[in-house]
Amino acid sequence: MARSVGRICKSFQRLGLLSKQTQLVPFTRVPVGTVRTIVTLPSFLFPQPRDFSLPNPSWGSEMTRMYEHYESQCEVETEGGQKQKGPWRRLPSYNRLLKYATGGVYLSKMIQSKARLFTRNIRNPGAAFEYVLFMNKEEQKCVCILQAGHLLEGPPGHVHGGAIATMIDTVTGTHATFLSGPVMTANLNINYRRPIPLGGTVLLESSLEKKEGRKTFITCRVTSTDGSKLHTETSALFLSITASHLLGG
Amino acid sequence: MARSVGRICKSFQRLGLLSKQTQLVPFTRVPVGTVRTIVTLPSFLFPQPRDFSLPNPSWGSEMTRMYEHYESQCEVETEGGQKQKGPWRRLPSYNRLLKYATGGVYLSKMIQSKARLFTRNIRNPGAAFEYVLFMNKEEQKCVCILQAGHLLEGPPGHVHGGAIATMIDTVTGTHATFLSGPVMTANLNINYRRPIPLGGTVLLESSLEKKEGRKTFITCRVTSTDGSKLHTETSALFLSITASHLLGG
Repeated sequence: MARSVGRICKSFQRLGLLSKQTQLVPFTRVPVGTVRTIVTLPSFLFPQPRDFSLPNPSWGSEMTRMYEHYESQCEVETEGGQKQKGPWRRLPSYNRLLKYATGGVYLSKMIQSKARLFTRNIRNPGAAFEYVLFMNKEEQKCVCILQAGHLLEGPPGHVHGGAIATMIDTVTGTHATFLSGPVMTANLNINYRRPIPLGGTVLLESSLEKKEGRKTFITCRVTSTDGSKLHTETSALFLSITASHLLGG
Repeated sequence: MARSVGRICKSFQRLGLLSKQTQLVPFTRVPVGTVRTIVTLPSFLFPQPRDFSLPNPSWGSEMTRMYEHYESQCEVETEGGQKQKGPWRRLPSYNRLLKYATGGVYLSKMIQSKARLFTRNIRNPGAAFEYVLFMNKEEQKCVCILQAGHLLEGPPGHVHGGAIATMIDTVTGTHATFLSGPVMTANLNINYRRPIPLGGTVLLESSLEKKEGRKTFITCRVTSTDGSKLHTETSALFLSITASHLLGG
């Protein structure tokens, strides 16, 4: 029992969910039956995981400029000088789906896993996907600013078609989840119009087309940041699912 | 001039194309005009780059079994006991499109680049995409065995839809290139039928549908290795291009 508690705590530490300096009752003195208490440590003991959607020094001027454009519309000033929520909202981004690691019957399975989100599996800033998503609830739109790093190469000097598909799936999937709750990708129909230069910054704009029962239809355009060059056009279909689908139920 | 030769040689070394132990004439003694001789060092001086399509210890039993199944059909024995080419051919796989780094006007630009092929950008065996492609010229088919590592997560415990799209683009794109010469992806229409468990091994089978002028139509199915479970179905369209398209011409 003590050993399994040790394994769980080490897994937490590896995931960055539990500081190595955290003082815990030594495992050898933990009586059987207290495991649940240790596993459900209150959230203030968990250091903040890295939010990959925040700016870092690898961001170029175009990425930074676009970020500031949308970030400035997340909180606006009223005429009276008071601050209030703006039309856009930045979505934080982590390298695991943490909500599944903080509770539930799959806890032990998930925390022992080394799994990482595909789009955030490289920690070296600027090397792969640098991106940030903003959501506009009222207009039912989602935008993503993407700076495509040197590890995403497909044709020489250009971004891999699969890396572009990955970002399209990420943006439309996140958008569909916000509109319809848990969903799974059912179809992606991607038209590639113009290759994206490696190192370039582009804009992904996702819009709701329609909802029909369990189906959510989303369209997505990838363009240059000024909108003048169209790189891809996509129609995507998502199916609503229950949480038990995701957790192997 | 000596400095630029040094930079070129260092770039070669970083790319693994030139051993650090290789004895070269000291740059300070190299007279102007011999740069071309050094840059075009004969291929026997270049150590063999790593072929990612060969088995490594991270491969599970299913991946290994499928590899041996196709590998054994690459060379067959005749009735007289002599060896001859079989119906299948394994395609080697590197983390750069090396043919563009060994010559041509874009040499200096390419070797200074840190770019890596998206599907081979993580060197840690088993962590991301472990895959090998086999081509059958006579049947105009291509198969790929894929073992999906823990860094490819999308929904908890399952492979990211973008990672699946990436492998589909890779397999159908390679297949189209063998059939039609240089091509670019024009359309990917992917139907996701059943999620792929993280760590699982699947088979991608790509078939020529038709060729019409510059267009090559390919279909691709992703199934369990015994073919009993269908994960995705795809139709893909590729457009033939000239080499100058690729190299920014």
